[in-house]
Order: sequence, then C-alpha cells, then structure tokens
Amino acid sequence: MSDRIANPTKNSLENMGEFALIESVFKAGAIAMAQINPENTPALGIGDDCALLKPKEGELIAITSDMLVSGRHFFADADPFRLGKKSLAVNLSDLAAMGANPLGFTLSLALPNMDEAWIKAFARGLFAKANQFNCPLIGGDTCTGPLTINITALGSVPSDHSMRRSGAQNHDDIWVSGTVGDARLALAHARNEWGLHLNDDQLTSINQRLHEPIPRIELGIALRGFVSAGIDISDGLLGDLRHILKASDVSAEIWLDLLPVSCILQEQQNHIRRQCAAAGGDDYELCFTAPQCHRSRIQEISHDLDIPLTRIGQLVNNKRIAPNMTLLDQDGKALDTELTNSLLQSFDHFK
Amino acid sequence: MSDRIANPTKNSLENMGEFALIESVFKAGAIAMAQINPENTPALGIGDDCALLKPKEGELIAITSDMLVSGRHFFADADPFRLGKKSLAVNLSDLAAMGANPLGFTLSLALPNMDEAWIKAFARGLFAKANQFNCPLIGGDTCTGPLTINITALGSVPSDHSMRRSGAQNHDDIWVSGTVGDARLALAHARNEWGLHLNDDQLTSINQRLHEPIPRIELGIALRGFVSAGIDISDGLLGDLRHILKASDVSAEIWLDLLPVSCILQEQQNHIRRQCAAAGGDDYELCFTAPQCHRSRIQEISHDLDIPLTRIGQLVNNKRIAPNMTLLDQDGKALDTELTNSLLQSFDHFK
Repeated sequence: MSDRIANPTKNSLENMGEFALIESVFKAGAIAMAQINPENTPALGIGDDCALLKPKEGELIAITSDMLVSGRHFFADADPFRLGKKSLAVNLSDLAAMGANPLGFTLSLALPNMDEAWIKAFARGLFAKANQFNCPLIGGDTCTGPLTINITALGSVPSDHSMRRSGAQNHDDIWVSGTVGDARLALAHARNEWGLHLNDDQLTSINQRLHEPIPRIELGIALRGFVSAGIDISDGLLGDLRHILKASDVSAEIWLDLLPVSCILQEQQNHIRRQCAAAGGDDYELCFTAPQCHRSRIQEISHDLDIPLTRIGQLVNNKRIAPNMTLLDQDGKALDTELTNSLLQSFDHFK
Repeated sequence: MSDRIANPTKNSLENMGEFALIESVFKAGAIAMAQINPENTPALGIGDDCALLKPKEGELIAITSDMLVSGRHFFADADPFRLGKKSLAVNLSDLAAMGANPLGFTLSLALPNMDEAWIKAFARGLFAKANQFNCPLIGGDTCTGPLTINITALGSVPSDHSMRRSGAQNHDDIWVSGTVGDARLALAHARNEWGLHLNDDQLTSINQRLHEPIPRIELGIALRGFVSAGIDISDGLLGDLRHILKASDVSAEIWLDLLPVSCILQEQQNHIRRQCAAAGGDDYELCFTAPQCHRSRIQEISHDLDIPLTRIGQLVNNKRIAPNMTLLDQDGKALDTELTNSLLQSFDHFK
C-alpha cells in the first residue's frame, strides 16, 4: 500500500536513502544466509511483489503470525539484539508445536524513527536465530509508526503427521518439555513483585529464559506422527493445555507439584512456584499428549535430544466437571475451585 | 508471545470475554466463508498453533506481507468497512502482480481499545473482499496497541509461470491496466492541494479508486506464462516501473501524455494530470512488459476480461542513461531531467 495517505511531507525515515539502508541491512543478512545454507534458499526471496517457495511433494505448509508491540510485548528500551532473536523465536515455537520444519519468514517492521544502531542490532539478533534454525527471511515491509514487529513464519510438515491440538484421547499421558516458570519469575523481578531475593547468577539465568527462548523445533519434528496433540506454552502451561482439552473434548488431571521447574524456582515459596510454573507464560516449551504405550519412545527422544520430558498428568474421563481440569497437590488432593481458577487465568489470543 | 510483559494489569481489551468476542467475529466470518466455498477451505484454519495449506503438485507458494499503520497509511477515522476491504485488497494486488491464485491470509491486528462496532464493520469489509476473491482467513493474532493491521497473503502459481520483475527484455512493450492517477487526485482533494474543483459525482468516483482498489487477480492469472515482467502500482507508476527496469537491467521510453487516465483526471491541468498518473500511487493496477509479438493476445485478454490494457512505452537499448527512463511528451520530445526526476519520486519500501 502506498505510504503517504496521511502525511504529505516525508519525515527522516521516509528519506529514500535511509529506507535503502534498512533494505540493505536485511537484504545483506538474507544473502549471507543463502551463501551459508544454499539448500534452503527460497525459489524467490526479497525483492519482488511476492516471495516464492517450492513445497516438496506430500508436504503441508504450516503458517503462523505473531505481532509484537512496544510497551505491550516488550519494554520500549529492550535490547534490540535480544528482541530480534525473540521475535523470530516465538514464531518458530509455533512451528515446533505443529511439528513443522522451518521454510522461511516475512518481517513487517514499523519504526518510529531511524536509529541505525538499533536496526543493525535487531537484524543481527534476527539473523542469528534465522541461521540457527535455517529459516531464511523471504520478504516483508517497513514503514514509520509506533515500534511494531510482525513476523509470519512458514514451515513444512508431512501430510497427516502434523501435531494438532485436537487429537488427545482419554487415558493419554500429558507431557511437558524442559522446565517451566523461569520466564515468569524474571518478569516478576522486573516488576518488583513478590519481594523476590535472587542473586546475579540466578537473575542471569531466568532473564535468559524470558528474553532468549529456544523454540523446540527438533523436538516437534521428533514427536510428530505418534503423539496425539501438542501446543507451545506462550500464555501459561495450564491455560495453553486447556486449548488442547477444548479442541479434543477431554479432561485432565494435573500433578501440580510435580511440574518440572529449575532449581531457582524450586527454592521459591510454594505459591510463587505454582503460579510461575502453572500460569507463567513465555516458556516456549512444548506440552503434548501421547498414548501410554509410547512412554519409552518419548524417554528415548528425551535422551537423544538432551531435553527433559516430564509426565505432568493424564487425560481422564470426567468431561462434565468444569473447567475440565483437576489440579492435584503433592498428596494427591484436589485444589479448591478458587485456587484452580486463579491458576487457569491466561490471555486468550485470537489464533 | 505472551501478551503481558510490560503491563501487569489487564485493560479492558485484554478481558478474556472481549478477546473472545473478537475471536468469534473473525472465526464466524471464516466459517461462513468455508460453507460458501468448501473447495477452498484450508487443510487447517483458525484455532491451532499454525494453519495448514495443502499445495497442489507442481505449484509454487507466493507470499506477501503489508503493514498498515493508522495516521500513516490511513486516517485514524477511516471508515472501518472500507479499511477492511482495502487491507486485504492491497495484499491481493501483490499476488496479482505475481500471477498467483489466492489461497488464504493471516491477519494481525493491534487495537487501541475495544470498539465492537468498529471491529464488526472492519471484519465485514475484510470478508467481503475475501469472499470476492475466494481467499479465506486462516489465522492471525490480536493485541492491544496503536491501530496497526498486518496481513500476509498466500497464493499459488504454476512453477515457472510466475510474473517476476526480472524478465523484461529490450524492445518489449510496456503495458498498464485500467486507468492511473485517480487515487492520487482523491488524496490531493482530501489534503486541499492544488485548488481542485470537483463535483460530487467526480468525488465519489475518485474516492472509490482511493479507498476501494480492485486487485487485478484475474488479469495476473491471464498474463502469466508469456509476459516478461510485471508489478502492481502501489507507489506510483514510474517509480514502480523502475523496479522492473532495475531488476531486468533495461531502460524505458514512456509516452507520458498517453498514460490512460479517467475523464475526471483528463480534465485537470497538464501538470496535475501528469503528476497523478505518473507518480500518484495507490492505483493497484498492473504494469507489465511483453514481447511485441503478444500484442493481439493481450488485446484479446483485455476484451475478454473487460479491462483496458494500454501500451505506454517500450524498453530501449540505452542502459547508460540515468535514471534508465526517458519521458516523452505528446510531441515525442523528451522532458528535461528536473521534471523527469520529480515524476520518478516514489517511496522505497523494503520488500
């Protein structure tokens, strides 16, 4: 769309030379990446009306979009290198949750002003993550506006092997990868919540979880084809798990005090640990369900990929009990409704 | 990505019930569309970590993204119905310029507050355009933030039949569809530029061109396979044509006073007509190049689709003359460099 409907005069960012600079930064990154990984170069990349991808026979194309707004999803003064990495990582996490292999991504970027150092650092972070997962930048759009980042990531998945939300069955195990809750603990610290006492090493570790999530692409690919349902944890473990329960029309029993947490979170008070692990968000781990017969196969995958995979509950046959989830404490006793509901709070994105 | 990093308290839009409303509006539109056009339903639509599309054998996937920011690409008080239509139309226009058939689109929407009437009107416009071009909504994201719309549209095109920017050859004809310049005239009127005198019928007509562009999907499909290069006109005819010249490494001679314009623009002063037609932007017509041997075929397509197609110049062998374009007046005389350069001004989006 033409960029001049509301503003007859161009501001500094609209100066053609400066737009050319932005373009050169992202094009250079894409070209450098194509030289490193020529086998994953798109049929047509940046520089035409559309990018073109050539799907392999028998594969489905997976598509996901995430919009990140300054002051909402990240602080306005966020480190641009980390922000670049995270912007792509959260989209790759959605591909992982579908068991998809990354093919490429588009970037739309609204910038309030021209800050060459910021743009270069953001691009460095973006391409660091893109290179790590062999996911090339294939196109996009830049304009002036309040700092907003939109990435659409595309991936491929063999037909009928995608990991959807809707296949979970009664008696399936519920699994979660890695540990959950550290990102929420880091957010609590940044907000001065809960009077936390954390040393520098602990802070570094949990901030890494908040700002540099690792999408579980390899794990998603290893799990596809035999697990019954999967989702990535962006809004909180229990809230996201409920999307599986709803889509699959099943209920769950969760062993709340057995959720896998880091040593740092393990040391916190019980209510903080539960809140962070069960409802924290920003974990970008995978939560999935699988028939009990696959336990040893899942343990093997855990061993091979060096990613902890923990059984955190099971699907049970009590559909009529709202909210379709029972939380059990360490003694196997169900939590009361109020406490359960408070842990089920989660943002409800439109997806 | 979790939606709560910067704001510990939720505002009204984050209320789960209100997000559920937004979700229901867009889901309902997608479901209604699937009932009307079941053959174009995605393998997996809204409601999972990713959407899934099943490409046909031998087809490439075309991808394009446009970000529209309030106060920049549209006025903050723009009619939401028209805005919904235009938001999708500008992306479909990019698919048209590649000769692609629409497959689906994702929508990311940042909204400053919850305005049910606005959202419903926007969605009505969006789905009106989606239905018209059989292009289903397959996923997306909503959040709070300054009003920003990002659409990523996907299409399919037979391998080796895509209409790229890079195939133009010396001696090719240069063509443009429909008429150009009315959208710029409407913008000039809205900005009180040039002391224009236009009656109500004229205003209705040119505002329609500005606010309700028609993507040339059918035309793009009809042209693919034999034209040498193509682009859609979003930033101004000559500026966009230069992308073809640059990508193809050729030069052009343009018959400036033969550019196809509406009766309304024809009546305006010479400098206004030239400015609007040559550098106006927001036309969303197709500009393409083709070997001279295809003139009758192109005229037949024009007749069959009832879309005017006009030859506006030709590619010539004088590469060394910057800016690779000579503008000729009605007497065949070349315009001077200053006037030529002023008509070549165009925004330079990163694509």
